[in-house]
Amino acid sequence: MVEQTKEQAVIATLKERKDRYVSGQELATGASVSRAAIWKQIESLRAKGYVIEASPRRGYRLVSSPDLLIPEELAALIRTETIGLRVVHRKEVDSTNNLAKELAEKGAPEGTVVIAEEQTAGRGRLERSWASPRGGIWLSVILRPPLAPLGATRFTLLAAVAAAKAIETLGITPEIKWPNDVLIEGRKVCGILLELSAQADRIEHLVIGFGINANITQRDIPVEARERATSLAGVLGREIARAPFVATLFSVFEQEYRRLLAGDWEGVLSDWIQRCNMVNKHIVLDTFQGVEEGVFAGVDDFGAIRLRQADGEVQTFAAGDVTVKA
Amino acid sequence: MVEQTKEQAVIATLKERKDRYVSGQELATGASVSRAAIWKQIESLRAKGYVIEASPRRGYRLVSSPDLLIPEELAALIRTETIGLRVVHRKEVDSTNNLAKELAEKGAPEGTVVIAEEQTAGRGRLERSWASPRGGIWLSVILRPPLAPLGATRFTLLAAVAAAKAIETLGITPEIKWPNDVLIEGRKVCGILLELSAQADRIEHLVIGFGINANITQRDIPVEARERATSLAGVLGREIARAPFVATLFSVFEQEYRRLLAGDWEGVLSDWIQRCNMVNKHIVLDTFQGVEEGVFAGVDDFGAIRLRQADGEVQTFAAGDVTVKA
Repeated sequence: MVEQTKEQAVIATLKERKDRYVSGQELATGASVSRAAIWKQIESLRAKGYVIEASPRRGYRLVSSPDLLIPEELAALIRTETIGLRVVHRKEVDSTNNLAKELAEKGAPEGTVVIAEEQTAGRGRLERSWASPRGGIWLSVILRPPLAPLGATRFTLLAAVAAAKAIETLGITPEIKWPNDVLIEGRKVCGILLELSAQADRIEHLVIGFGINANITQRDIPVEARERATSLAGVLGREIARAPFVATLFSVFEQEYRRLLAGDWEGVLSDWIQRCNMVNKHIVLDTFQGVEEGVFAGVDDFGAIRLRQADGEVQTFAAGDVTVKA
Repeated sequence: MVEQTKEQAVIATLKERKDRYVSGQELATGASVSRAAIWKQIESLRAKGYVIEASPRRGYRLVSSPDLLIPEELAALIRTETIGLRVVHRKEVDSTNNLAKELAEKGAPEGTVVIAEEQTAGRGRLERSWASPRGGIWLSVILRPPLAPLGATRFTLLAAVAAAKAIETLGITPEIKWPNDVLIEGRKVCGILLELSAQADRIEHLVIGFGINANITQRDIPVEARERATSLAGVLGREIARAPFVATLFSVFEQEYRRLLAGDWEGVLSDWIQRCNMVNKHIVLDTFQGVEEGVFAGVDDFGAIRLRQADGEVQTFAAGDVTVKA
């Protein structure tokens, strides 16, 4: 569980008593600060977007909370033991992966998550840019698995499984396109970008970035990508509560991560295959050294794609851009 | 070939005429600067350790050059097309790999090399520290191979082959211990540390650090490592000329690198095996999850070690610390 800061303790109490006044003394006791110091926490919370009424006699009352993925909003919802226990929040950042990599280089522990309300230079696979306006969920998780870098590609498939399972809790049935795009009705709702730093025989850190089109409209998506993209709000016809969704993503992700570390790659892979939209489909793969075609024949132990080609031979490709033909 | 700076052109001319005076006018013409600007180049060269005599009538004369691996000393010796075309030199740095990683993150091109006269926090594999006093060769090469990270471990073997071949040009016969220690008569003369930054399907950059005990004495080596370490000067009974040796290392390394990119992993591997001190030997491998024993049975396609165990079965291990028994 997350260890609460004093501010988080204050906001937790105010939320519990939603719409009612709480005395300054009670808040002070709950947060283990002096009665006189409470105003400082209140001011700091207001600066973050919380609307808090103060009455000299009755104390403080929470009027509204900001729709931000800040630790104050997440802390009470998080049920994990590692993932998300430290959240670094920014209103704006070039790319959450960039900041996460920087923090990881400086020694940020496993499970640290960087979340931004907006990315000014969001990145996807294959050097593609990724539109990241307000309303989406842009976050990067730092992992330090005790593994050789050989195993790193497995984490891209794992991340796609976690994102898909989190989306399923909203009552939606997503699909996965190799290696790690999550689609709804054929349109991309979530992209994943894994970056790793390693020595030859061990991973130093992994950074797994999730870009989830949550509460964004088709208009927020660049024209050229609009046809191929969708959002959770667009599919559901209503905005989602982002903070609980993020807490769910952390839980599901932690479960899958533990499973992989415990040696159950087969289990992760089977969950991936179950959601994969390519089974028995004819695939066109642009490997950037040429175009390959064939029938999807699963993935190998490292997450590389296998295609059964016209001559019956099965070939394996580590990288490329997939189009599902039929 | 290296494109010369003006300073490098001046020093090249002075070196050519070693012991003789060169007129300021001639130096100016050679370096494409004005006659009046030559004194600035001379002052800057003096600051780097060059001893240059000036005579109002006769011009300038080079008395001695510093024993430093600076671009001015290397430029004329380098015969490569990529490796070492940009050299970043420091008198002291925490670790050349650290600085190289930093430069690589900022976009330093393939072939950039970081060289330091001294490392204050030199690092080896397995979190070990690496004594790096003056006189040694401490350098890190930045590569950007268009490959999936799966292939990265091959570069550790490749680097060991390059270091061994460079040492062979001195008339010494080194051996390689898995994965990439270079030994002379059983004692370590060169260590290699590979670090990589990657996405799931492609390497962003590799940093390959070489730590070569060149002109250092047994006294420079920490007591606890003295028995297991040696130096080129110690073996030869004289100091080596470091700059030409580094230029040779760049050439050999570039050859091996091209060979791997051209698809000849088998060739690199065969050169590695030829120099390997473990063929048919009984090996003890500390995998950090337990100790394994067996007869060395080569390495796999990713550079992992294969051991034939007592029951006849061959097992493969990606990481570990090897002791050769007999």
